[in-house]
Amino acid sequence: MTNPVTVEVTRGLLVESRHRGAVAVVDGDGKLVFSLGDVEAAVFPRSSCKAMQALPLVESGAADAYGFGDKELALACASHNGEEEHVALARSMLSRAGRDAQALECGAHWSMSQKILIQQARMLDAPTALHNNCSGKHAGFICACCHQDLDPKGYVGYQHPLQVEIRAAMESLTGTVIGADSCGTDGCSIPTYAVPLRSLAHGFAKMATGTGLDPLRAKASRRLIEACMAEPFYVAGSGRACTALMQIAPGRIFCKTGAEGVFCAAIPEKGIAIALKCEDGMTRAAEAMVAATLARFFETESEVHAALIAYAATPMRNWNGIHVGDVRVTSAFAG
Amino acid sequence: MTNPVTVEVTRGLLVESRHRGAVAVVDGDGKLVFSLGDVEAAVFPRSSCKAMQALPLVESGAADAYGFGDKELALACASHNGEEEHVALARSMLSRAGRDAQALECGAHWSMSQKILIQQARMLDAPTALHNNCSGKHAGFICACCHQDLDPKGYVGYQHPLQVEIRAAMESLTGTVIGADSCGTDGCSIPTYAVPLRSLAHGFAKMATGTGLDPLRAKASRRLIEACMAEPFYVAGSGRACTALMQIAPGRIFCKTGAEGVFCAAIPEKGIAIALKCEDGMTRAAEAMVAATLARFFETESEVHAALIAYAATPMRNWNGIHVGDVRVTSAFAG
Repeated sequence: MTNPVTVEVTRGLLVESRHRGAVAVVDGDGKLVFSLGDVEAAVFPRSSCKAMQALPLVESGAADAYGFGDKELALACASHNGEEEHVALARSMLSRAGRDAQALECGAHWSMSQKILIQQARMLDAPTALHNNCSGKHAGFICACCHQDLDPKGYVGYQHPLQVEIRAAMESLTGTVIGADSCGTDGCSIPTYAVPLRSLAHGFAKMATGTGLDPLRAKASRRLIEACMAEPFYVAGSGRACTALMQIAPGRIFCKTGAEGVFCAAIPEKGIAIALKCEDGMTRAAEAMVAATLARFFETESEVHAALIAYAATPMRNWNGIHVGDVRVTSAFAG
Repeated sequence: MTNPVTVEVTRGLLVESRHRGAVAVVDGDGKLVFSLGDVEAAVFPRSSCKAMQALPLVESGAADAYGFGDKELALACASHNGEEEHVALARSMLSRAGRDAQALECGAHWSMSQKILIQQARMLDAPTALHNNCSGKHAGFICACCHQDLDPKGYVGYQHPLQVEIRAAMESLTGTVIGADSCGTDGCSIPTYAVPLRSLAHGFAKMATGTGLDPLRAKASRRLIEACMAEPFYVAGSGRACTALMQIAPGRIFCKTGAEGVFCAAIPEKGIAIALKCEDGMTRAAEAMVAATLARFFETESEVHAALIAYAATPMRNWNGIHVGDVRVTSAFAG
């Protein structure tokens, strides 16, 4: 099926660009409560499933052993800006397992936030692996290995026991069988597994509700989601959608973006989770889509609803600050 | 009509993201010699039509009066990186009309090239209007005004005589009537006019061939296109598609990108021009599309053809340099 146009980018009186996509909203039992487009198509969750990938860190007891609180767990689920606080905390997480940046296998890159990149360029000759947006996740991986007496060396590999553990968690949560055919390599070198969008949403609905999970996993899932909701700055950073959306309704919305236009979210009190993908991979559309989808589950008259609807229609300003158009969801989200 | 998928982004064995788009290839007489998707839909050319917008600079005699050569004319048609050479030349163009950066009404922004942005961040407190990717075009506008004894103040406005001149050139070249309804404001604050993709291609085909143009316009058009082909660095800069594509076949390919996934090109020796738009506005897809479209017009066994085909399928490497997938045109371009 052809995915509907979910987001339009306007200029003057015209629509200049169009984004298509699919949205799945699922409850803990796997019931599809809202959808747009092809929700059975397999998508790579990319960074959107970092909270799933962090389960071994908590379930193994490593997070407790190293004294991790909400900030550390949020950073383990993060695609962060590489701001000073993010970098310092990733370093601290590693040090608690007796490791340092040398152990990170994620590669290095400058911040993807222009503002932070400019600060980094003025302070650093080059970024390190600690500045990589995934450094908290990787620090968590290394801690999970060290606590379980697994050699972290090669922890990004498909065959490494940690990735086997993560794969099993992904299969169990999403109810899918993950074969080598559905495996890609992520930006930070770990495997990423394509699963149907609907299954990805179901996995997050299970995490948010505990439905069908053993007590250990239910508790670890709740703890990770609550940590992200409690410390949204550590999940992304200044000016970022994940942080801003979670700040709109503190403790009520969990959300996490992934590369190539993926966004996952959950509203634990409503017992539902969201997974969506903008077909062309563009972040601006995925951000509008997740805000509009989240808004459906809050009272129409509420401040949270108004803030989410506002987020789903972003004015674009040019270099002189003139309002030239908008990025806004289409009527596909109406009704 | 629904535009076809023109570009796929792969990861592992799967297609992760898809881009749709439309392509029009037209000869000097306006005959459509190749097309994909809806070529009658109106698109904002954005920066892709800077060579059209530079016509008053040449036709008025300003370019000659100020001693502009290929570099200056290429910069007048450019969306440049804000590299030192670009900034210095824009300053020099203004100075020849007795003006300076204060006269620029384009606004300021950091380079859109990460590499150049890092250099700028280390040297500058903040970017100036000279660093704006459009500063060469705006310097050309100001020179065109000064030479014609027009007050350049407010030259970005819809009613300013210079914009009236540019609008007339756009209408004549594209054979369309431009109303206020089809006018948007561009990133640099000048008006941008939505015209059918096919008409935009026809306008460039007229410029490349001179078909149907009066001798003054035919000469000015050829001069601008030849200047860009002679000095591709000044049209964009290091690592940029416009520069790289024109360097593949020196003096044989003209091309110019625009924001929101637009690309225009011409092959003067073949008497054709190209206008295309990626529906979702993503540059990576527009670049692959223009390379694949250009390739159709070169001998299959030639080096130029091979280089263009290679450009239409770009490997993506992650932070560790691992090949994780490709951005590549689809079979829509076959046959």
